[in-house]
Amino acid sequence: MDASSLRGEFPALERLAYFNTGTNGPLPQAAARAAERELRQELEQGRTHASFDRKSELASELREAYASLLHCDTADLALTTCTSEGLAQVLDGLELQAGDEILTSDEEHPGLLGALGAARELRGVSVRMAPLPQITEAVGPRTRLVACSHVSWVSGLLAPAELSELDVPVVLDGAQGVGAIPVDVGTLRCDAYAGAGQKWLCGPNGSGMLYVSPQLRARLRVTRRGYLDLADPNEGLAARPHDDARRFDAMALSSETLACARAAVGVLQAAGLGAVQARARDLAARLAGELARRGREPAPRDDTTLVSFQSPDPEGERLRLAERAVIVRNIPGRPWLRASVGGWNSEDDLDRLLEAL
Amino acid sequence: MDASSLRGEFPALERLAYFNTGTNGPLPQAAARAAERELRQELEQGRTHASFDRKSELASELREAYASLLHCDTADLALTTCTSEGLAQVLDGLELQAGDEILTSDEEHPGLLGALGAARELRGVSVRMAPLPQITEAVGPRTRLVACSHVSWVSGLLAPAELSELDVPVVLDGAQGVGAIPVDVGTLRCDAYAGAGQKWLCGPNGSGMLYVSPQLRARLRVTRRGYLDLADPNEGLAARPHDDARRFDAMALSSETLACARAAVGVLQAAGLGAVQARARDLAARLAGELARRGREPAPRDDTTLVSFQSPDPEGERLRLAERAVIVRNIPGRPWLRASVGGWNSEDDLDRLLEAL
Repeated sequence: MDASSLRGEFPALERLAYFNTGTNGPLPQAAARAAERELRQELEQGRTHASFDRKSELASELREAYASLLHCDTADLALTTCTSEGLAQVLDGLELQAGDEILTSDEEHPGLLGALGAARELRGVSVRMAPLPQITEAVGPRTRLVACSHVSWVSGLLAPAELSELDVPVVLDGAQGVGAIPVDVGTLRCDAYAGAGQKWLCGPNGSGMLYVSPQLRARLRVTRRGYLDLADPNEGLAARPHDDARRFDAMALSSETLACARAAVGVLQAAGLGAVQARARDLAARLAGELARRGREPAPRDDTTLVSFQSPDPEGERLRLAERAVIVRNIPGRPWLRASVGGWNSEDDLDRLLEAL
Repeated sequence: MDASSLRGEFPALERLAYFNTGTNGPLPQAAARAAERELRQELEQGRTHASFDRKSELASELREAYASLLHCDTADLALTTCTSEGLAQVLDGLELQAGDEILTSDEEHPGLLGALGAARELRGVSVRMAPLPQITEAVGPRTRLVACSHVSWVSGLLAPAELSELDVPVVLDGAQGVGAIPVDVGTLRCDAYAGAGQKWLCGPNGSGMLYVSPQLRARLRVTRRGYLDLADPNEGLAARPHDDARRFDAMALSSETLACARAAVGVLQAAGLGAVQARARDLAARLAGELARRGREPAPRDDTTLVSFQSPDPEGERLRLAERAVIVRNIPGRPWLRASVGGWNSEDDLDRLLEAL
């Protein structure tokens, strides 16, 4: 991969040393153009039957692209608006009850915690937390589900590989996984994997994906059913959800959002996703090493694209860095700043961050 | 209002005699530009903390605009991605059980029927249908909820005004209401009103609204909770949904979608929404009269913006009309074509439709 030509796809990187892809990736030129093209088409040609067909076609293309990233069948891949929506669908669709336990980690994102909180409050399910690296050992006799990060948004730690050996269902929050590191739901042997389109895949807000295994799909209730979720929408009250994962599709995704998300993935694929990811992890490791050398101890981490590190005043320092066009985030409740490192970042970006600290 | 200058806002109307706003309205130039402006900003400036603030600001503006259209408090108005999402949230959030009955009409859209089907299948709630004009009289002792159209997508009939006198909660599907005709949730005395941004408000796909009365809000479980639905997202498992209707907000709405939706409403408001609606209803009444004179009997209708009428071959005729750039839709399961008439339509559009039949 030619790193500088990839970088050239992202106009915002001309000015910014951007390290916040864990929130929102930089948007590539081609993705914005793809959205604009769909908007222009709708504006000038009208939203006729042809534009409905166009939307279906774009949804199919995006579904295929996302499925290829997760190494799953397109029939097992739903298009969502964000990671949290996918996680909520799974937690809401499982008929867990009082007496059942969900095991999670102690470094989860509000998106998963919101869904777990609802299960606890509305169904009396108990939720127990364990450190992410030891989560497998914490599974107990009442554990009916393990729901945790693939990659922790807090530290960049990875879920342990031993999760694949459990016989309770596993749901992974892949917000910091898909796009950032290689993902294969077959190897992970998870039952559900929820991911974001706007983070490591550099797509628009309002894009995301949910993989659900056929086994889990058979157990999940489809509690919300829009027109596109139904196999036979004109059958009235008897209409049934699609047999495949389209039953979990978001109810309304625009052509501009679908095209933008697809084009963003295309930019990364054209550069070689494996190479982009390898470069990102290499830069992240170098950054972690440099920070340690400078007494800015990184949080315990794995070989991922996130580097969290000590800050005496995380929020204040984040703002001071932003004034120098160096974009990181602070982690609420922890004394850390977090740098998200992408394959589009440069050595110069790293230097700018280190110098600004 | 200057009708021709309003029409000039919609480039697609140069070519099309467009009568399908009941599916998707024409997109105004200013709305596409507003979306493009947000995309350009994100592309060039990056999606930093400032862009998060920008998104919140756009959400507030759109919430205010939608609330003013429904004549409700902004605290009672949630931003959704479509009508069906709002209806599903209400039906899913109500703790109805076997033995309870929902009363609906016999001309509802798959978006509401999907939600009713889920209540029937997953909770054993019974669903009974009555003709829309007589729905009030059909309320029975087991009726716990009335869920029906404000304006029927099939015929253009209005829900009866007597719904406001019921003491069971009423949920209205306003997909063909808000934007098309004046709506005042206080006068309707409904407990929930779900509407679309992309139909009579001419906004993007992926925009919509849900009004929930404070009384109903207190009864609805919040089964899905994303970051933006939570009042205190950093409180972990203890995080609580917002006290107000933001608890029902869609989990991910992009700046481009929000700005596009807001700008589209702005175009209609600048032209005078009351005048736009009056013109649309006047044109619709004229069309219905002309159709009757030509032996194309319109379906029973009220003073709304939809005109459904007899066709010997609805799907075939729709396609033949589309070849002449006259856009209507057919109604599955009924021998009808449906023309959606907007304040942006012209006399010439009407003539083109009538001549093409």
